[in-house]
Amino acid sequence: MPTIEQEVNMKKLAAMIRGIKIAMLTTLSADGTLHSRPLATQDVEFDGTLWFFTAAGSAKTSEIRQYPQVSVSYASADHPRSCALSGRASLIQEAEKMKELWSPVYRAWFPQGLDDPELALMRVDVDKAEYWD
Amino acid sequence: MPTIEQEVNMKKLAAMIRGIKIAMLTTLSADGTLHSRPLATQDVEFDGTLWFFTAAGSAKTSEIRQYPQVSVSYASADHPRSCALSGRASLIQEAEKMKELWSPVYRAWFPQGLDDPELALMRVDVDKAEYWD
Repeated sequence: MPTIEQEVNMKKLAAMIRGIKIAMLTTLSADGTLHSRPLATQDVEFDGTLWFFTAAGSAKTSEIRQYPQVSVSYASADHPRSCALSGRASLIQEAEKMKELWSPVYRAWFPQGLDDPELALMRVDVDKAEYWD
Repeated sequence: MPTIEQEVNMKKLAAMIRGIKIAMLTTLSADGTLHSRPLATQDVEFDGTLWFFTAAGSAKTSEIRQYPQVSVSYASADHPRSCALSGRASLIQEAEKMKELWSPVYRAWFPQGLDDPELALMRVDVDKAEYWD
């Protein structure tokens, strides 16, 4: 189990994440700059681990191999609330897990679906979480 | 002048930033983790430099002193658009610049206003920018 800072109400954090469709993932690039990009979030209850579909050959994949620490933030403009999580990212290519988390909406990024050989999961084990209301 | 990647339409980027009130600033912490937090954005035209009011003794200030590379991202939940900028941050405590950028809305964070001895500006010279519609 990840250590979530005590001041964070896990249920509130989970609800907040659930309501926001796009997360910002920030990684450290090989050139030392910080690199952020939006990612579609999973419609599953947050329990300390975040999952994202990604391409095995993507820039973020090579960045997390070199430096696994990442930040995932969620901001919502319509409600002035946001949260930021930091943790360790890893790449997972397990057919069973991908099947469990797959949804047809991901066809927008992976038209071949679960048969795409590039399809992978990025798993983020969250160590710290903060939110602002 | 910062080098903005050619594929980025500066006017579109400026308009996008202007429409989003909260930015996410990500820094590298001393412990090697990535640290994100929301920041109120300036209501000024983006010209390659971003400015944020901050407290001189805040965590972000000490983080950018140790590692000046930062990411600033803007996501809007009501419009599916977002952008991410990376660049070099520095701390500025020039009375004239603070007066120029000050707005009464910042009293929420700095009740003493421009007389607050902790008041400082974080300047981010943007090197790279990307956006997604």
